[in-house]
Amino acid sequence: MFNRVAVIGLGLIGGSVGLALRQTKAAQQVVGYDLGRGVSDHARKVGAIDEAYLTLVDAVRGADLVVLATPVGAMHALLQDIAPYVTPGTVITDVASTKAQVMHWAEELLPSSVSFVGGHPMTGKEVSGVDAADADLFRNRIYCLTPTEHTRAVAITKVATFVEVIGARVRFLDPVEHDRLVAGVSHLPFLASIALVNTVAGNQNWSEASLLAANGFRDISRLAAGNPEMYRDICLTNSEGITPWLDAYIMNLQALREQIVAHEHTLNETFAEAQERRQQWYQTSHNIDESF
Amino acid sequence: MFNRVAVIGLGLIGGSVGLALRQTKAAQQVVGYDLGRGVSDHARKVGAIDEAYLTLVDAVRGADLVVLATPVGAMHALLQDIAPYVTPGTVITDVASTKAQVMHWAEELLPSSVSFVGGHPMTGKEVSGVDAADADLFRNRIYCLTPTEHTRAVAITKVATFVEVIGARVRFLDPVEHDRLVAGVSHLPFLASIALVNTVAGNQNWSEASLLAANGFRDISRLAAGNPEMYRDICLTNSEGITPWLDAYIMNLQALREQIVAHEHTLNETFAEAQERRQQWYQTSHNIDESF
Repeated sequence: MFNRVAVIGLGLIGGSVGLALRQTKAAQQVVGYDLGRGVSDHARKVGAIDEAYLTLVDAVRGADLVVLATPVGAMHALLQDIAPYVTPGTVITDVASTKAQVMHWAEELLPSSVSFVGGHPMTGKEVSGVDAADADLFRNRIYCLTPTEHTRAVAITKVATFVEVIGARVRFLDPVEHDRLVAGVSHLPFLASIALVNTVAGNQNWSEASLLAANGFRDISRLAAGNPEMYRDICLTNSEGITPWLDAYIMNLQALREQIVAHEHTLNETFAEAQERRQQWYQTSHNIDESF
Repeated sequence: MFNRVAVIGLGLIGGSVGLALRQTKAAQQVVGYDLGRGVSDHARKVGAIDEAYLTLVDAVRGADLVVLATPVGAMHALLQDIAPYVTPGTVITDVASTKAQVMHWAEELLPSSVSFVGGHPMTGKEVSGVDAADADLFRNRIYCLTPTEHTRAVAITKVATFVEVIGARVRFLDPVEHDRLVAGVSHLPFLASIALVNTVAGNQNWSEASLLAANGFRDISRLAAGNPEMYRDICLTNSEGITPWLDAYIMNLQALREQIVAHEHTLNETFAEAQERRQQWYQTSHNIDESF
């Protein structure tokens, strides 16, 4: 199905892409490159790639599919670096969390002889690195693809095939629409968690309060433990998607505050609405790791 | 150590109190009462109490320690109902999530011949009911006690002994101070979760967005699945403790919004602060269920 697939960035996602591709035997050869010293050699040893390259140029040369599996913060430089070396006809995709900015960079930086189809797998794990890679990471998960009206049909088909081969389910979205949606379900949650931790644990009585923090604080603060640079790069590339959600969230909190100050006995209706919505989503969701 | 302990309300907490007391043989007799039909009989069968009573009056009569293990919303009526029947000298404690209001009710409603020492165990489970009860639920957890300057020393000692017997660690706090602290670490988290769910899942694009919701949304929304009536009663009895935290949280979110709009590259410092605070708490915390 694929001749040579190059995976650039061999962390959890890149490593899992490699494992899944090799397991299905959908590619003649899976090659890899990672900036980190020794990472690509290690990825080869754990079976995520067939061959490790020491330079980006060697890795992408001759590949019919290039998967850029780095965080969004590395994407601009990476596109710049591969642009002079990609073989005409190559199809390139990425896995970054925001899409409009990446699509813009790809259009600006890549030669017109290659095609770029933005991607975003809705999956992940609490742990990172190739040792956490898992051939089943994409199994039944939604995998967004964000082609534009200029994207060649053959490139879209190729990347959609890749997504299905690794076990995920393709969902086509406009890049701006994608960013608006994930801003709500993914970026607002980490911002809410971070603001909560800085509010509560930044307070002067934290040393006393921390002793009383239990499962509720654990749940709400979990996302605040995520990578600060990755979160920053998401915010920098999706500020327009995020801001309206933050505004709506603040409005909701202010409305709740007024209900509480007024001792409104119907507060439970607001709470029941949230409970119902959460339960309904949880029962039907396929994007979550149920074992966790 | 205790002659007769009466547990009123045989859910997760009440049931666990009974199991822990019976396991340690610290009480001659553990008796129980629950409003729910058949609940106290079932509690007896699973070993949480020695004897089940059909009326509140019979359950509390002659007890030297009464543990009111109901949500805060039931507390006012319960104190009213037991007041005419408690034996002089009885020590009464509760497990409700807020304390200032409960202490006030106890002072107002109970005869001066009995003593009330407010309590709040910092523990819990995702599931409720006596079938989820666990003799180890309190093991090494913080258990707040909130006596006032009027509380008799002998009553404080009795309840502190009870707390230690069931395996928890006593922490004395002023009731108002308790409510202010838990408002930050426990009430603000569920309000933040509820507002987030209502913001995101109440939006018109939710049917599309819900497909992209993954682990981040799962974590931040978990608390929104909690009992709406319990949450309401907490808000109604602790609005003064909660409001300043909501204000501080909204301010923090607004500051984040400004940083994002301004594309501030130092955003990661704000995020790193939260990460550091969360990790530090998680490593030292003893109030959380690590297995979850």
